[in-house]
Amino acid sequence: MYQLLAQDPHSKARAGLITTDRGVIETPIFMPVGTQGTVKAIEQRELLELGAQIILGNTYHLYLRPTEDVLSKMGGLHKFMNWQKPILTDSGGFQVFSLKELMKLTEDGAAFSSHIDGSKHFFSPERVMEIQRCIGSDIMMLLDECTSFPATHDEAKRSMERSMRWAQRCKTALEGSEPRYGARQFAFGIGQGSVYKDLRRESLETLINIGFDGYAIGGLAVGEKAEIMYDIVDFSTDYMPQNQPRYLMGVGTPQNILSCIERGVDMFDCVMPTRNARNAQLFTTTGRINLRNAKYRFDETPIDAGLENYASTNFSRAYLRHLFMADEILALQLASQHNIAFYLWLARTARQHILEGTYTAWKRSFLEQWYPQ
Amino acid sequence: MYQLLAQDPHSKARAGLITTDRGVIETPIFMPVGTQGTVKAIEQRELLELGAQIILGNTYHLYLRPTEDVLSKMGGLHKFMNWQKPILTDSGGFQVFSLKELMKLTEDGAAFSSHIDGSKHFFSPERVMEIQRCIGSDIMMLLDECTSFPATHDEAKRSMERSMRWAQRCKTALEGSEPRYGARQFAFGIGQGSVYKDLRRESLETLINIGFDGYAIGGLAVGEKAEIMYDIVDFSTDYMPQNQPRYLMGVGTPQNILSCIERGVDMFDCVMPTRNARNAQLFTTTGRINLRNAKYRFDETPIDAGLENYASTNFSRAYLRHLFMADEILALQLASQHNIAFYLWLARTARQHILEGTYTAWKRSFLEQWYPQ
Repeated sequence: MYQLLAQDPHSKARAGLITTDRGVIETPIFMPVGTQGTVKAIEQRELLELGAQIILGNTYHLYLRPTEDVLSKMGGLHKFMNWQKPILTDSGGFQVFSLKELMKLTEDGAAFSSHIDGSKHFFSPERVMEIQRCIGSDIMMLLDECTSFPATHDEAKRSMERSMRWAQRCKTALEGSEPRYGARQFAFGIGQGSVYKDLRRESLETLINIGFDGYAIGGLAVGEKAEIMYDIVDFSTDYMPQNQPRYLMGVGTPQNILSCIERGVDMFDCVMPTRNARNAQLFTTTGRINLRNAKYRFDETPIDAGLENYASTNFSRAYLRHLFMADEILALQLASQHNIAFYLWLARTARQHILEGTYTAWKRSFLEQWYPQ
Repeated sequence: MYQLLAQDPHSKARAGLITTDRGVIETPIFMPVGTQGTVKAIEQRELLELGAQIILGNTYHLYLRPTEDVLSKMGGLHKFMNWQKPILTDSGGFQVFSLKELMKLTEDGAAFSSHIDGSKHFFSPERVMEIQRCIGSDIMMLLDECTSFPATHDEAKRSMERSMRWAQRCKTALEGSEPRYGARQFAFGIGQGSVYKDLRRESLETLINIGFDGYAIGGLAVGEKAEIMYDIVDFSTDYMPQNQPRYLMGVGTPQNILSCIERGVDMFDCVMPTRNARNAQLFTTTGRINLRNAKYRFDETPIDAGLENYASTNFSRAYLRHLFMADEILALQLASQHNIAFYLWLARTARQHILEGTYTAWKRSFLEQWYPQ
């Protein structure tokens, strides 16, 4: 599934290819988040135009709406949403665990009430694999227990161990079921263990023993300091196979992403570019800006002259600011396109520099101008 | 400005061309409404793709936001919103009069408080022309008094007469000012007179005596029955010059538009396609549908196979329904594109049939399948 193309001479950054039946993904890659079968405010043809190679879906949300019967009848999520490239689905565990008092956790799985209509449901490791089969995800994520933060070593250990038992059950379920809609469905294990390196190592070794197509680092970006996150990522990638993809879940800022590419991660996803876009917060090639700031009222410069897509180059900051002030939907569309364009540009540019052996120098100079001191 | 190309042999329907410095408009035409410098939820490149030839802006809204100083600095609305084709601006009178208790009307004009921040403003006929000069509208509408409905003959007469005095003041203001941004700025007079034919005639004759580039029928679609509206339109077009454009303001449903094309109208605008789209109500070539209806849950057919644009043909009704049920922004985008595509298709198809001399027969058969009895 993974082919290593280049290794940065000064860091653990690596460039490679992930091959799925619906397309080859150039890594490092940023994956736009399309929770409910749409990347918010962006059309599918626009995702292609911006260079998206893989997007995310969310098992919890898609299970509740449109539901498995619709997805199954429509031939899976790809056909339903008219997106032919790869889709990775999150297991939905994170959303279910966020329901707190609406959720009851046992060794068997999680019973929960829908946030939409209060109806009762149950997610077990096996059930979550079955739903992802029905969605038709190219990459399925195992159901794991999201360890809360902060956690004591004991709490983190008990939680991680349950996730590992669930990983084995997911594996068994996968072996007893078939991929749907004619394409292979890969599955990634998720390393847990909070901020404790011995647990992180044990978790990854357990997963590798069970054997998955790729490995993710879970349970980070949940409130710990960036330096701790970087340290755990750096430690974890040492225990992840060289010949398989590595995915850091839910991370993060541009600085986070570049720092974790440097530590050997291939795949990233985050709601930040689309969510911040809807709040008028733009990531541009020259820094972050908030368009609600009055200083952009007369700003004739394009949203971002450093990019090449429609939204970033064809409209002034003054116009986009006006759209936000006037509560216009087009504001959300243009800002979301722009922020996704920026994140995809960031991963693409990082990759180019890894291929050229200039990653660490580029990263340093880019961040120096991006976060001026 | 207007060139008559064809006259339907069985009705007053006509096909023509309106020439502005920013493009030639093929009539009959539907003009998408872009109140605040954006047609809600549709990108400018998409408007071009759908075949929009002219869009509307609103003087009241643009005056309050982004304001004249921004528009002037940015080189006018076309440049500000990156739309190179013609723009027609409504005078803003309709919005100001809708403010009711926040508005005070005198012979000089209308004093009002902003709906945004309560600040005090004054629109006179002269001021509204000045603002439209600043916007850079290709077609400016005069400030008129919107006669309430129902109105007695006396009320309608007094109101119409004031609008006619204002029309003369607009004309004088236009003669004393220059077009901005290097393109001609045409001005249309607006016939009033409620449902009274003698007043309608007097109003149009007065406007034609003053002399404008085109003439509009105002004060309709305000609560009167469709048959009365059709009758007033039919009567009015008899008094409108053959060699100038005729614009029926704020109308309407597909049936309204086809019926008024038949009565000699060239130009239409209405918020219905975009507003209804945002409520999941679609106009399709085979009828109206509401996607919140459960029967579309498994509907694999395209939104409208009778059209050729991206939104209408690339997504199933089931998918668009899902986007509405999940409150996704993409629902608004795809539905708005589709409805505007339908309205533009309707005007284009009507025009084609006028050119071929088959308008009345086509209109009858289209509406028979569209509103089945």
